Amino acid sequence: MTKKHILSILVDNEPGVLSRIVGLFSGRGYNIESLCVAETAEPKESRITMVTMGDTLILEQIKKQLNKLINVIKVADMTDQDFVERELVLIKITAKTENRAEILRIVDIFRAQVVDVSQEHYTISITGDANKISAIFSLLKPFGIREVTRTGSIAMFRELKK
Amino acid sequence: MTKKHILSILVDNEPGVLSRIVGLFSGRGYNIESLCVAETAEPKESRITMVTMGDTLILEQIKKQLNKLINVIKVADMTDQDFVERELVLIKITAKTENRAEILRIVDIFRAQVVDVSQEHYTISITGDANKISAIFSLLKPFGIREVTRTGSIAMFRELKK
Repeated sequence: MTKKHILSILVDNEPGVLSRIVGLFSGRGYNIESLCVAETAEPKESRITMVTMGDTLILEQIKKQLNKLINVIKVADMTDQDFVERELVLIKITAKTENRAEILRIVDIFRAQVVDVSQEHYTISITGDANKISAIFSLLKPFGIREVTRTGSIAMFRELKK
Repeated sequence: MTKKHILSILVDNEPGVLSRIVGLFSGRGYNIESLCVAETAEPKESRITMVTMGDTLILEQIKKQLNKLINVIKVADMTDQDFVERELVLIKITAKTENRAEILRIVDIFRAQVVDVSQEHYTISITGDANKISAIFSLLKPFGIREVTRTGSIAMFRELKK
């Protein structure tokens, strides 16, 4: 069965670890949709958040291999669980004078921010889940999107509400 | 000379590309501090944003090799240039009743958001550059940071202000 999976992998912050992990996926032709890696509050550890789309059985095999890697501390598969997911996106759009008011209204509604302005462009920073990001894309598209840089999703389990 | 570099690499969105790129760095023992990869507005292309800390000469060699890879469309080294840099961080902290007001004041000042609440915890989402993120860490640390997930930086060139 093919579905979207979010993996959160805690690893030692050492050169070569990311390469080995990514290699496990590409060795099986398993596509990584997005990936973030950065250190945690503990500089000796990094956390990799990975969004993949593919066969559940193959992913189970990859997860077993991940758990055998010496620098992998913990693998959490967040699929079908209760988690918070967020992504950060920078969007550079053409902002003609006559469109600026409307663009700023969209920015306000989505609680986005204009982080750079020139005579002809706005650069916008927005945080949200996949649905919110794709909604602002649709609204901004008619003005002319020049460049997009996305972080890909990061995620955290929700806490039980006792 | 060792310094921080930000690379923005546009690549074909195909399995194996990320693995080859990361392999170039780990093959030389060159540490990647953070890395984000996700598709752009054009689903056939992905953009990798990478923060590295290391020797400038070795990085020049790696950049030449990157440019030779068949699925690499463009390599931009943003180091020493004028760019906007942002990172997204999720922070789960212990939020005792007597500390909640103070935590929410900090959240407000940093324009962060509480994205999950339980009896004992807040999960906070914050966007900013490296300085802002490290400032909120220092302020939240006394309350007890339980978990941190960071995207790592993404960046975009600033436009010329004519």
